[in-house]
Amino acid sequence: MSRAKIVVCRDMGEKAMGLLTASDHEVVVFPGSPDPPPRSWVLENIKGAAGICVMMADKANQELLDAAGPSLKVVSTFSVGHDHIDVNALQARDVRLGYTPDVLNDAVADLTVMLALMAMRRAKEGMDIVHKSQWPQTHWSPFLLTGPSFSRPKLTLGFLGFGRISHSVLSRFLSFTLPASHPDAPKVIYTSSHRRPEQDSIDAEYTKRFGVEVKWVEKEELARESDVLIVLCNLNESTKGIVGKEFLSNMKETAVLVNTARGAVVDSHALAEALDQGKLFAAGVDVVDGEPNVKADHPLVKQPRCVVLPHVGSATWDSREGMALLCAKNVLAGVQGEELPAELK
Amino acid sequence: MSRAKIVVCRDMGEKAMGLLTASDHEVVVFPGSPDPPPRSWVLENIKGAAGICVMMADKANQELLDAAGPSLKVVSTFSVGHDHIDVNALQARDVRLGYTPDVLNDAVADLTVMLALMAMRRAKEGMDIVHKSQWPQTHWSPFLLTGPSFSRPKLTLGFLGFGRISHSVLSRFLSFTLPASHPDAPKVIYTSSHRRPEQDSIDAEYTKRFGVEVKWVEKEELARESDVLIVLCNLNESTKGIVGKEFLSNMKETAVLVNTARGAVVDSHALAEALDQGKLFAAGVDVVDGEPNVKADHPLVKQPRCVVLPHVGSATWDSREGMALLCAKNVLAGVQGEELPAELK
Repeated sequence: MSRAKIVVCRDMGEKAMGLLTASDHEVVVFPGSPDPPPRSWVLENIKGAAGICVMMADKANQELLDAAGPSLKVVSTFSVGHDHIDVNALQARDVRLGYTPDVLNDAVADLTVMLALMAMRRAKEGMDIVHKSQWPQTHWSPFLLTGPSFSRPKLTLGFLGFGRISHSVLSRFLSFTLPASHPDAPKVIYTSSHRRPEQDSIDAEYTKRFGVEVKWVEKEELARESDVLIVLCNLNESTKGIVGKEFLSNMKETAVLVNTARGAVVDSHALAEALDQGKLFAAGVDVVDGEPNVKADHPLVKQPRCVVLPHVGSATWDSREGMALLCAKNVLAGVQGEELPAELK
Repeated sequence: MSRAKIVVCRDMGEKAMGLLTASDHEVVVFPGSPDPPPRSWVLENIKGAAGICVMMADKANQELLDAAGPSLKVVSTFSVGHDHIDVNALQARDVRLGYTPDVLNDAVADLTVMLALMAMRRAKEGMDIVHKSQWPQTHWSPFLLTGPSFSRPKLTLGFLGFGRISHSVLSRFLSFTLPASHPDAPKVIYTSSHRRPEQDSIDAEYTKRFGVEVKWVEKEELARESDVLIVLCNLNESTKGIVGKEFLSNMKETAVLVNTARGAVVDSHALAEALDQGKLFAAGVDVVDGEPNVKADHPLVKQPRCVVLPHVGSATWDSREGMALLCAKNVLAGVQGEELPAELK
């Protein structure tokens, strides 16, 4: 096995970097870590490389492939999302793509539950009162800062995208709701790309697995019926802006929306306007279209009923270390012509 | 049944007020609601009353009893906590005490989970970055804003006070952790007022009920071993300041603490100092000693790793309506000499 060059766009921590450097390949790490490398650094260093580890800010596109030349065998992204990668261009050149699914599921699911609770319980307004020294004048009263809850009867949990992370969110949610055996037990509705011929039997499987009714619905019904709406789909041409003005105008005034997928799935300005007009109760977003160029004057940041976090969905020690190790293993396998532990095909 | 006078310190919403006014008793509601009544209004109006509905800000003490005179039969508090009530003074006068247990359990348990997640996931720091327009310069990197998680192996969940709300919190937590069947499954430790002779069999019952090991421990062990420490005990002479400098100095550097009980159980200044010194990882508190006189310069409010909420534990529509109805039913039953739906004896 010949010595190959591996480019790493950010220091990935002791364990993952140890794995790479122990491999005897030439490992080139961006020296300015943890900041992202300038594009010029990437394009310069990718020349003649066999593999590269990229993060969301590092685009793996035609330009990168051209700069790399024919030596490039694998792109390994430190993420489960891959909207920063031109998958077709990679396939056309027979460059394999490694990604990091599953190891971040728990972290993203936890954050999704946290944001749903923060939206329902008006955490941003509550914290604001404290931070602005208004607590002394904010007299406790029976209905001050109240909001909806998971334990209400006949709750409808909605999912836009119903993959593994949504399943993890759902199993957490069911520990907050009325039990499945209750006459007013919650039910689950979801939309995924399109209704399959066997959708009824898939739904029967889900219903059995989660113990509550689970049903595929059209997105109009999803908007109309959900009390808690979770956005957890991939970003692609069919999902871009899918949660826009029309979708939001169909929501319940008491509903909350959480986006832990990708910012561009939700039209930020339409969401801010819908919240301003009381078309839904509150929202929590970990991702915003155009991030990280989101400032304090962004309409969602200014909205008292919208919690905005700076894309920390997978930010737990365990999850990020798991992602780093998988990213390193993927690039090594790709460089050595072995099967990738997690390949996106 | 003769017509009696009932004083209500705050408008308790349509349903509860409807119940009271339909009773044909004389109902005197503080006209300045939702603000709390001045003490002088309470002392003036309580004269000759048979019952009173109070909130946390309204002290039911000797002074109130003296102002009321011998007609007073019942004090009904819109709360489960009763540290604003002189229980002994009430008993000495044979005045019954109604309270609102259970109806707020889900709401407080939900908020407790939310605060634990916010502490672990550094929600305050994340929101601060966004609100201060620092997101554009805050480059994503593998270990930015990372923290501990529920899914780590051999997690120890600790409870200071292990009543019904703690049980509700625990059943929610177990949907986030490794499953009970896992070799590295979580375990639970707790402290309550004192170790009973039959504690081992009580713990065996808990272990059976929750599916993971549950064990009573001394408070030193609770501090030392907990990864997530939940404070949910009553405030009384033995718990006041129990989470102080010594307790906090024994905690794990990676642990988080949540207080959804009463502020004075935790020494605020000791907690702020422990967070400053990295003696524990982060905290979330819904209650602060001296509240609501807590301003932006309070050491916990200034601490980036401490989320502070303005006592909204029970603030859901369902829970507050349930509390209002129970509070109204308690006062009516007391006035009419019937059994109280929820009496604290």
